[in-house]
Amino acid sequence: MSKSPEEEHPRKAFGWAARDSSGVLSPFKFSRRATGEEDVTFKVLYCGICHSDLHSIKNEWGLSTYPLLPGHEVVGVVTEVGSKVTKFKVGDKVGVGCMVGACHSCDHCKNDLENYCPKSIQTYNSTYHDGTRTYGGYSDFMIANERYIVRMPENMPLDGGAPLLCAGITVYSPMKYYGLCSPGMHLGVVGLGGLGHVAVKFAKAFGMKVTVISTSPAKKQEALERLGADDFLVSRDQGQIQTAIGTMDGIIDTVSAEHPLLPLMVLLKTNGKLVMVGAPNRPLDLPVFPLLMGRKMVGGSLIGGLKETQEMIDFAGKHSITADIELIPIDYLNTAMERLVKADVKYRFVIDIGNTLTPA
Amino acid sequence: MSKSPEEEHPRKAFGWAARDSSGVLSPFKFSRRATGEEDVTFKVLYCGICHSDLHSIKNEWGLSTYPLLPGHEVVGVVTEVGSKVTKFKVGDKVGVGCMVGACHSCDHCKNDLENYCPKSIQTYNSTYHDGTRTYGGYSDFMIANERYIVRMPENMPLDGGAPLLCAGITVYSPMKYYGLCSPGMHLGVVGLGGLGHVAVKFAKAFGMKVTVISTSPAKKQEALERLGADDFLVSRDQGQIQTAIGTMDGIIDTVSAEHPLLPLMVLLKTNGKLVMVGAPNRPLDLPVFPLLMGRKMVGGSLIGGLKETQEMIDFAGKHSITADIELIPIDYLNTAMERLVKADVKYRFVIDIGNTLTPA
Repeated sequence: MSKSPEEEHPRKAFGWAARDSSGVLSPFKFSRRATGEEDVTFKVLYCGICHSDLHSIKNEWGLSTYPLLPGHEVVGVVTEVGSKVTKFKVGDKVGVGCMVGACHSCDHCKNDLENYCPKSIQTYNSTYHDGTRTYGGYSDFMIANERYIVRMPENMPLDGGAPLLCAGITVYSPMKYYGLCSPGMHLGVVGLGGLGHVAVKFAKAFGMKVTVISTSPAKKQEALERLGADDFLVSRDQGQIQTAIGTMDGIIDTVSAEHPLLPLMVLLKTNGKLVMVGAPNRPLDLPVFPLLMGRKMVGGSLIGGLKETQEMIDFAGKHSITADIELIPIDYLNTAMERLVKADVKYRFVIDIGNTLTPA
Repeated sequence: MSKSPEEEHPRKAFGWAARDSSGVLSPFKFSRRATGEEDVTFKVLYCGICHSDLHSIKNEWGLSTYPLLPGHEVVGVVTEVGSKVTKFKVGDKVGVGCMVGACHSCDHCKNDLENYCPKSIQTYNSTYHDGTRTYGGYSDFMIANERYIVRMPENMPLDGGAPLLCAGITVYSPMKYYGLCSPGMHLGVVGLGGLGHVAVKFAKAFGMKVTVISTSPAKKQEALERLGADDFLVSRDQGQIQTAIGTMDGIIDTVSAEHPLLPLMVLLKTNGKLVMVGAPNRPLDLPVFPLLMGRKMVGGSLIGGLKETQEMIDFAGKHSITADIELIPIDYLNTAMERLVKADVKYRFVIDIGNTLTPA
């Protein structure tokens, strides 16, 4: 007989969870395990709201188990470490991203690609090694094996840094893997949301020329002036697309809605790479001739491993990169979710857990 | 006023051409230019029949101009060289593949990727620098700038070697570019036709494990016994696909008919690459989740540059690789085309030009 979420572990915990696919979040009492030998426990200060959280609370991927407590862009301060923890101590500023476990024995894990381990354990809505459910960062404290703990740079504001743990690594990892990170290269970024705006910042830090590609002409000014993009294309404007044909080394496509790939593929140079990091529910049309004629490729990428996540956050710290955020109190959470549906945020909501989450 | 094909150049030439989109080939008198300073002229001995020839004579891509004289897998013996030709002499065994010209000043050309030069000139159905049409290898002799002449290995039978100039480089180039050429890797080859059977041979020569994927169970025995593949999967058999999920480093997909990509994508390991070398006329369904979940990619490739074509043919010579062919006399040409429509050939028709093409 499994115990209730409130009783299964020794430590009382508190957060906000969805109870069904209405997706409405409300205060939730649960529990977390004691700090194990290799575990790090930290008080949560901030947690970003990722679009995945929205999909999950509404069970839009059909994978949700309730109660579901989201949040995988979590930062805070260490309060306790296990006896075998070597990298962290009480008081350290740390974070947890999308994963809290994996098998640690497969080739993926051995090569620091825990994100592709078939047994990887997600930070929420997943089952941990001990058989209990994982609950995310919309909560008062977190615990994870130290392998899954990221050290936050000293100079990085923790609120704007939190979204990097998912949005940041999601765009940074493919830029590295697909070789789209060299000075002078020309990168297209499709979609100027939580992922896209961070992609622009990383690309500029890599010394690249960056063109934002968006369906919304209204985003031009902010793309150029606020985020420092070099150029802006309205994806549905054939004339604008024509001017940029064959000019891009790569494109990071952050859009998870269905959209045509052909206008993007023609923007690529020979050997150009179109990398999808958003996940449309239905297959997209793939025209094959353009792939052949320019030896182009369409690839994908899914977050990143822990070693690379630390590398990303260190790089972000060095280049003063954070997400542009709107900080909200926890009781604004359901309103924020409604606004997120309408993409009404620049560019990421972050919950001020430390100052606003109090037990009911 | 442009002159007729028979009169525009000083040298009388003879071959078989299609006169309209019926695609019926018949004897054709035309002319070729005098041997220029950098040109190599050679007597044609053999010419392979590529599936592109079939598409072209019937104008299935809408790009054909008649009379259309196909053939871009052409081998023979040098009969004359220009004063500035340095690499070839009379009597050399040589070949010409899919191209006879390009701009030689763009980045593609400078990097030995003439195949991706926007101004590349195809061996037939294209317009040469002098404004005249190009005519292919179903003819008594050929002429090309020496940059486009490939030296055939001494030990290579010229009839079986001819198809390598298109089919060979078309599969060899992506294996190299996408890094699918290392011993111990597992390669899937989709489609066991002119391209596919050569891909199997190259992959085995690279020391790879090779699995042929085909809709036709009848091809199993020949794939394993005749071509030396290690395994065989019927692509429509879910059970067989299941046994091989996540086992392949890459797949070379030679099929130009519409077909589902998902069953192929699931066969790939993390970081696996699905490379299209066939060109379906209509877009294929691209499921995006599998791309993300395994950091997979779908890429394309189009023949290869001349430097790499020479490398390919030298590699083939070293490993005694030729195409499996059915040698036909020129007057069997229209019958061969009918059989090609039905894929009734193992695996490439080659025309015995030297012994059977005689002026009407």
